[in-house]
Amino acid sequence: MLLELINKTGDIKKIPQQKYQELAGEIRHFLIETISKTGGHLASNLGAVELTMALHLALDLPKDKIIWDVGHQAYTHKILTGRKDKFDTLRQFGGLSGFPKRCESSTDCFDTGHSSTSISAGLGMVKARDLMGEDYTVVSVIGDGSLTGGLAYEALNNASKLETNFIIILNDNEMSISESVGGMKKYLNNVRTADGYLNLKEDVYAQLSSNHKVVDGIRRAKNSFKQLFVPGMVFENLGITYLGPVDGHNVASLEKTIKEAKKVKKAVMIHVMTKKGKGYGPAERHPARFHGTEPFIVENGLPRNPRTTANYQDIFSTVMCKLGARNAKVVAITAAMADGTGLKRFRNMYPDRFIDAGIAEEHAVTFAAGMAAGGYKPVFAVYSSFLQRAYDQILEDVCLQKLPVVFAIDRAGLVGSDGETHQGIFDVSFLSSMPNMHIMAPKNKWELSDMLKFAVDFDMPVAVRYPRGNAYDGLKDFRAPVKLGKCEPLYEEKDICLLALGSMVKIGEEVRKLLKDRGLNCSLVNARFYKPIDTDYIKAASHSHKLFVTMEENVLTGGFGEKVRDYIDTNRIDAGVLNIAIPDQFVTHGSVDKLRAELKIDADSIAERIINELHR
Amino acid sequence: MLLELINKTGDIKKIPQQKYQELAGEIRHFLIETISKTGGHLASNLGAVELTMALHLALDLPKDKIIWDVGHQAYTHKILTGRKDKFDTLRQFGGLSGFPKRCESSTDCFDTGHSSTSISAGLGMVKARDLMGEDYTVVSVIGDGSLTGGLAYEALNNASKLETNFIIILNDNEMSISESVGGMKKYLNNVRTADGYLNLKEDVYAQLSSNHKVVDGIRRAKNSFKQLFVPGMVFENLGITYLGPVDGHNVASLEKTIKEAKKVKKAVMIHVMTKKGKGYGPAERHPARFHGTEPFIVENGLPRNPRTTANYQDIFSTVMCKLGARNAKVVAITAAMADGTGLKRFRNMYPDRFIDAGIAEEHAVTFAAGMAAGGYKPVFAVYSSFLQRAYDQILEDVCLQKLPVVFAIDRAGLVGSDGETHQGIFDVSFLSSMPNMHIMAPKNKWELSDMLKFAVDFDMPVAVRYPRGNAYDGLKDFRAPVKLGKCEPLYEEKDICLLALGSMVKIGEEVRKLLKDRGLNCSLVNARFYKPIDTDYIKAASHSHKLFVTMEENVLTGGFGEKVRDYIDTNRIDAGVLNIAIPDQFVTHGSVDKLRAELKIDADSIAERIINELHR
Repeated sequence: MLLELINKTGDIKKIPQQKYQELAGEIRHFLIETISKTGGHLASNLGAVELTMALHLALDLPKDKIIWDVGHQAYTHKILTGRKDKFDTLRQFGGLSGFPKRCESSTDCFDTGHSSTSISAGLGMVKARDLMGEDYTVVSVIGDGSLTGGLAYEALNNASKLETNFIIILNDNEMSISESVGGMKKYLNNVRTADGYLNLKEDVYAQLSSNHKVVDGIRRAKNSFKQLFVPGMVFENLGITYLGPVDGHNVASLEKTIKEAKKVKKAVMIHVMTKKGKGYGPAERHPARFHGTEPFIVENGLPRNPRTTANYQDIFSTVMCKLGARNAKVVAITAAMADGTGLKRFRNMYPDRFIDAGIAEEHAVTFAAGMAAGGYKPVFAVYSSFLQRAYDQILEDVCLQKLPVVFAIDRAGLVGSDGETHQGIFDVSFLSSMPNMHIMAPKNKWELSDMLKFAVDFDMPVAVRYPRGNAYDGLKDFRAPVKLGKCEPLYEEKDICLLALGSMVKIGEEVRKLLKDRGLNCSLVNARFYKPIDTDYIKAASHSHKLFVTMEENVLTGGFGEKVRDYIDTNRIDAGVLNIAIPDQFVTHGSVDKLRAELKIDADSIAERIINELHR
Repeated sequence: MLLELINKTGDIKKIPQQKYQELAGEIRHFLIETISKTGGHLASNLGAVELTMALHLALDLPKDKIIWDVGHQAYTHKILTGRKDKFDTLRQFGGLSGFPKRCESSTDCFDTGHSSTSISAGLGMVKARDLMGEDYTVVSVIGDGSLTGGLAYEALNNASKLETNFIIILNDNEMSISESVGGMKKYLNNVRTADGYLNLKEDVYAQLSSNHKVVDGIRRAKNSFKQLFVPGMVFENLGITYLGPVDGHNVASLEKTIKEAKKVKKAVMIHVMTKKGKGYGPAERHPARFHGTEPFIVENGLPRNPRTTANYQDIFSTVMCKLGARNAKVVAITAAMADGTGLKRFRNMYPDRFIDAGIAEEHAVTFAAGMAAGGYKPVFAVYSSFLQRAYDQILEDVCLQKLPVVFAIDRAGLVGSDGETHQGIFDVSFLSSMPNMHIMAPKNKWELSDMLKFAVDFDMPVAVRYPRGNAYDGLKDFRAPVKLGKCEPLYEEKDICLLALGSMVKIGEEVRKLLKDRGLNCSLVNARFYKPIDTDYIKAASHSHKLFVTMEENVLTGGFGEKVRDYIDTNRIDAGVLNIAIPDQFVTHGSVDKLRAELKIDADSIAERIINELHR
């Protein structure tokens, strides 16, 4: 096993060139075996094996810096930097993160998780390096999917003036999670297939390395044929030297190209062609499904633990199709997440009313505002943590104009193994401070359906947030009509009143049981709306309750609990308030149950906190 | 006067072509005269006179739609749509807004104020139009400055697949507020000066109008010379038909080009060359100063009311230069606001350590994170309402990694006449919910200096927010050292404790005086930190105070006041809390004093609210 020789950063340099392919094979085998047990990002990692090897061969880590865009393709990098033996803990609480983490290794020089940041961060490091008078190499690796995000373009626009080396590797697999979209994708496709395909010939290289004027000359030769045969002119026009396209599965050629690129005294892009899922049949055939996967059976790619119950995404998928049939004004928008959010069926049924904006949440929101201004009812399905990218557009383009855009906020609350960058724990706070916004969460799968219907019929900005994974199918008998700003009392007693939202309603049932076992009276209310809160109910309930317990899966600051406390306190209502929410910290990776316990927002902890509060 | 004939939408069509130039002159005269009295955006409006006239001639408003990017160039549009007579109320409370407002006119089809949104919004309207089966024309007007924002690129990437008409007008004046930056700017400059400058010749036009294959043919002719002579290949490569460049001050030629562009069955960009400040000498010479101007003397362009006192931007300017001298690791970053924020002097003194990212706040923040990771101390000077555009990058790239980036948040709080889109009233809320963030505000000009020094020496993410305009020079004798999370008591008495931040400290002085006139005891505390709050002080002060009054110029939800209430309530401290903050609404344009009174956060209102609270 060659992999046994790789135990720390730099060990790969001991491997002879003729063994590269063998090592790549072993790494793939290791990735498939490991991820089949732990779950994780498979397809993107399989595509980046040779590229990562080449980077490690051509660079000197940790002196040189690699910034991985998103970071879900950095597993091979982790294997090559002494973390191979920890892969059985991948994405588990206390274990290896699925993303680069500065706290994990000095070779992880920048934490990532969200798309399109790597060129900006890399440019910052280049500037620091140059001011410091140092000479290490900075490489930003970015996928073609990430290149649909505006941030990447802002960075390219800024990279153009650079007069020192900065390497951008465009890892082009024609995919975001699903297929990439838009003009840039088409352009890259043209480049791939262009007649003038420049195979990085030896002679061009020889000159390039000694004298960069060759490429400059080509670029300037406006009256020459040559321009027609240089691919990547879009990048060249923006001032970025373009090299490629290069075969992304040939280590030696990649290594050579990277070493040549290091000699260019400006921003240089190496366009690398890779295959997402490379080397594992099921992942090559279904790269989207194996983008982020649950544990699976290696032999056939099927899930180890097949789902037996519907998850919220399934419900969303079904309801959207129904709403689409009922109302021709309903359109569905995604930012490269048709699979994850469950919009594929809507896309197939109503292709004209489905829009994939690419990884471009800002555009998706302003586009939705434009459609709403044009008389339509756009539903933007988006993960909570990615909606953060469109804060300004939600505020200025949707809320300010009171446009009826529906935000279907998926992966709201704790998401588990993806960890810090993916927890959906801020959306209630940032949306709550926006005037004209309305925010709710369903207690179970039927309520998701009811709330989406309500949202589509509502004539103001509105968000429905729901978690990743299994849709709760309890509390089926409680299905009071959704009314603006009105809660749904489930069990009404006295003394303690649990005001729970979304996923916390189920936990509220458990808490109530624990309290009743202790002989305490406890009401459970499905609060439904984070904003506006049901002040009428709280006022009425205060006559029979001495403690209101708010329960939400969002950070405390700016959330539901503070609003309830504010109301009770401002109106001098004689009742205590206990806010159960996520404290002021980033939340690591791990199972959702484990994280809830750590954060003291699981049923046992909450019951204990309530009892402590009563005994103070 | 031709302008007298223009009283409602469409009236311009009655003006004969030979009078266009005369009308343009009258409009310019009107703009200069009006804005010289009211203040407002002058230079951008002077540059867009003929373009706006041409749009109104070529289109049928309000059926057709024009979306103005940012919207500060829409004055001529307002003049041509029946709002001429309201210009004396421009940007005043209850008067005409300085930006397009749907509530003002059916010809304002989308509210704007922030950069780079118009193509996205326009695409949304195009999609709505097409689904509806209607056939009006949608035109998005965007400046070359706005084109440095990633959102515009996301939109272009999405526009490429369009198979129906959508007109994008690139209003290229080579400026954001100051000069545009980056690769795109250089590229546009190359296009302007290219040998192959295509003057929209008649014969090309004739063919274009009957058959779009001509342009397609040119684009596809990879083996032909022609490609070299088609400017705008970057856009063509992205799938956008490019027309231009066109003289932006020739109404007839512009009108004709727009009419031709309407026939193209896809996204078409007309590249229009304009001169910012056109027709007014001082504005042509100093377009940045006349971007947004206070009232001025027409004869010489000098301010009508010259400033006699320093404003916060002057202080910031001076302090940054001192910090730059003291610490070689300090770098300054702006997103196209070197003038407005006061970074020009720093740029001149330390050009290597100054970065203008263009209108690209997302990039600016992630770039700053990269520099911080590389050992530097970046200070990102940015207007509060524009920092909203980088929410995700602040959270994920700065706070998550605890990187020591300093946010110098200018225009925090009420900004006055720019109105809804520019009020800096959300930053405390959105930053407060981010773990690892620290937020403070100075009471006066000396404290801004002290806080910036503290921030630069601090090793975590930190924000200093300060308002637009005059720096308060009272309370000079209070200059206790800035300590993390510690307030500065100014006047200590008993009963009522005012906890005020930033601009509200001065108002706190007035409130205290009003209360003392009423025989009430009142302490005044400069709270300094929005986050973390000084719980030790509050706890100690609660022994001698029965009411804490929090005073902040930010929305209530998620702000300082809720945190104080939370602390007092959770710790069962026996004292009342009154939160003075901005209610849950967008705040219109008008003078800051007028707005404060309307929002009941002026001294008189606050004193009254306190007395009411005491008497409840």
